[in-house]
Amino acid sequence: MRIAVDAMGGDHAPEHPVSGAVMAARELGVEIALVGDEAALAPALARHGSPDGIDIVHTEEAIGMDESVALAIRQKRRSSIHEAARLLRRGEVQGLVSAGNTGAVMAISKVIVGTLNGVDRPALAVVLPTQMGRAIVLDVGANVEPKSRHLVQFAVMGTHFASEILGVERPRVGLLSIGEEAGKGNDLVRKAHATLRESPLNFIGNVEANDLYRGRADVVVCDGFTGNILLKTSEAAVETLRFLMRTEFTRTWSGRLAGILGRGAFRRLRGRVDYAEFGGAPLLGLRGLAVICHGRSNPRAMRNGVRVALEYGQHGVDRRIEVALNDMQSNAAAPAATVR
Amino acid sequence: MRIAVDAMGGDHAPEHPVSGAVMAARELGVEIALVGDEAALAPALARHGSPDGIDIVHTEEAIGMDESVALAIRQKRRSSIHEAARLLRRGEVQGLVSAGNTGAVMAISKVIVGTLNGVDRPALAVVLPTQMGRAIVLDVGANVEPKSRHLVQFAVMGTHFASEILGVERPRVGLLSIGEEAGKGNDLVRKAHATLRESPLNFIGNVEANDLYRGRADVVVCDGFTGNILLKTSEAAVETLRFLMRTEFTRTWSGRLAGILGRGAFRRLRGRVDYAEFGGAPLLGLRGLAVICHGRSNPRAMRNGVRVALEYGQHGVDRRIEVALNDMQSNAAAPAATVR
Repeated sequence: MRIAVDAMGGDHAPEHPVSGAVMAARELGVEIALVGDEAALAPALARHGSPDGIDIVHTEEAIGMDESVALAIRQKRRSSIHEAARLLRRGEVQGLVSAGNTGAVMAISKVIVGTLNGVDRPALAVVLPTQMGRAIVLDVGANVEPKSRHLVQFAVMGTHFASEILGVERPRVGLLSIGEEAGKGNDLVRKAHATLRESPLNFIGNVEANDLYRGRADVVVCDGFTGNILLKTSEAAVETLRFLMRTEFTRTWSGRLAGILGRGAFRRLRGRVDYAEFGGAPLLGLRGLAVICHGRSNPRAMRNGVRVALEYGQHGVDRRIEVALNDMQSNAAAPAATVR
Repeated sequence: MRIAVDAMGGDHAPEHPVSGAVMAARELGVEIALVGDEAALAPALARHGSPDGIDIVHTEEAIGMDESVALAIRQKRRSSIHEAARLLRRGEVQGLVSAGNTGAVMAISKVIVGTLNGVDRPALAVVLPTQMGRAIVLDVGANVEPKSRHLVQFAVMGTHFASEILGVERPRVGLLSIGEEAGKGNDLVRKAHATLRESPLNFIGNVEANDLYRGRADVVVCDGFTGNILLKTSEAAVETLRFLMRTEFTRTWSGRLAGILGRGAFRRLRGRVDYAEFGGAPLLGLRGLAVICHGRSNPRAMRNGVRVALEYGQHGVDRRIEVALNDMQSNAAAPAATVR
C-alpha cells in the first residue's frame, strides 16, 4: 500500500507533514508519496536520515489555508492537492492525507478522483470520543443541503467505516434530530427516517447529541450544515469549559495545588477528547480514502491520518460500500419488478 | 407586577414550583398567581407560612412531562398551563413561568396568548454563558423550518432582550452559520444575512459556535432545528467532558487529592456553566414573557425564572420590540413609496 501525503498543506508545512510521513513509513511499513516542492522536501527528508519507503512527487504550487477555493481550483492546477488527487485517481496511491485547506481538498478530490458507484457525493466525517468509545458523524460540512437519499448513502459509508476501522460489530446508525420520535425534526430528517427504517442497516432511529456522546450510536448521520454546527459547538463548548476551569483553578491556592496534582488526569483527558488524535476527518465516498487533518496537526496526527487511510485500503472498505449500495438498490427495485 | 407560576409542571411539582414562588414573593416583592390543584397547594403554602403576595388559581388538570402535546392541548383544556396562559392573555399577570412540558407550554401559550404586532411566531431562546459573559441564542426549538423574515424578527427580539435584561449596550447580532463569509451556509442563512445587513440592528455577520462562546456576539439567531442542536450539543459535550474528567481524577491518588482540593473551583465552575442558573428559556414574541424552566429545576431556578419575567415586564420589552419592528417595516416600505 502507498499513501500520498500533501507536504504543502497545514500551518506547519512542510515540517509536520514530512515528520508525520517519516513516522508513518517507519512505524507502519507503508510507502509514502510525499507531494510538494522537492527543493524544500529533499533537505527536510535528509534531516530525518532519508528513510526508505518515501519518495517525493514534485510540484511547486501550493494552495494557502485561507485562499479562495473557487479561484485556487482553477488557477493552481498543479497544486500539491491536485497532484495527490491525481495519484489517487491513477491508482498510484490508495489514499491521501492532507492538512491543507479543507474546502480545496474536498472540491479537488471530488472532481479529480470521482465517487464510488452508488455514491452521489462524498461526505466529510469526523470520529468523536464518546463516554463508551468512539462514534463516526457524517456529514460535517461537505453537503450543506443534501437530499434524504444522500443521508442514506452516508449511513452506508459510515456503517462500513465503523465496522472495518473502528472495529464495531453491526454498527448502530442514528439520525441526528431534535427529538427521538419519528415525526420530530425537519423535512429532510423525516424523509430520511422513513428510508433508513426500510433499509438493511442497523438503524436505531433519531438520536440527539446526548445519545451520541453517551455512546448509544456508532454512526450518526446528518446534513453537512447541522453536522458542522455539532462539531464546532462540541469544540467550542469544551474549549470554554477549559477556559473557565483554568480561571477557577488559578483563583485560590487550593485550586492551584489541585491543578498541579491533577496534571496527569488533565493530560490523559486531553488525549481522550482531542479529536485530532484520530488523525483527521475521513472524506468518504471517493475511490480511495482522503483524510483531512486539522491545519495545526502535529506529526503524530499526520502519522495517524496515514494509518487510517492505510487500514481503509487494507480492509477494502470502498468495495464493501459499493456492494452494500448495489444490494440496497436491487432490493429497492425488486418489488417494482414484481408488480410489472 | 404579578407573574403566574405553573405549580403542576416539572419533575418535582408541586414542591419546587411552590418553594420557588415563595422565594420570589419574599425576595423580589412580586405577586404570584400559583396555578394548580388547591388541595395540594394550600398545605404546601401553609408549610412555608402562607406568605403574602401569593394566591392560588385553582385547576385540577395537569399535563404530564412526556404526554403527547397534540392530545394534551385538546383534551386538557383546563390544565395549569392553559390557565396560566389565560391569565396572561387577560392581563391578570404580566408573565408566566413553567417547568412543565416545553412543547405544551410553547403550543398553548402561542394559541391562547397570541403574538406581538409584527411577530409571526414566538421563538424559544436560551441564555448561555460565554468566556466574556452571556449571550442569548434563538430560536432553539420553537420553529424548525422558519423563513428568513422570522430570523430577522428573532434578531429584533433578541436585541431588546439583551439590552434590557442582560444589560448590553447596542447588542451585537450574529447569524449562526458554518463559516464567516456572507456566501457560506444554507439557503436560509444566505437570505437572512442579506436582510440583516440592511437592517438597523448591530449585525456583525455570520458567526460560528466558537464566536458565540468567546463572547463575540450578544445575540445569535438561527432556525429552531439548528439552535436545538447547538444547545443539546453544548450540554452533551460538557457532560461528557465532566464524565471523562471524573474517570481520570479517580484513577490515581494524586488525581483524587486534586479532586478534593479543587472542589471549590469545580463548584464555582458549575455555577457559571449551569444554564439553569439563568432561570429558564425565555419564550419571546408573546404578549408578556413566558419562561420555560428545565423539568428538573430546583426552587432557585424557578425563582430566577420569575425574576426574568418580572424584569421583562418592568422594562417594557414587549413595547420596545413592537416599536422596533414597526419602524423597520415603515423604513422598508418607504423607498417603494418614493418610487411610485
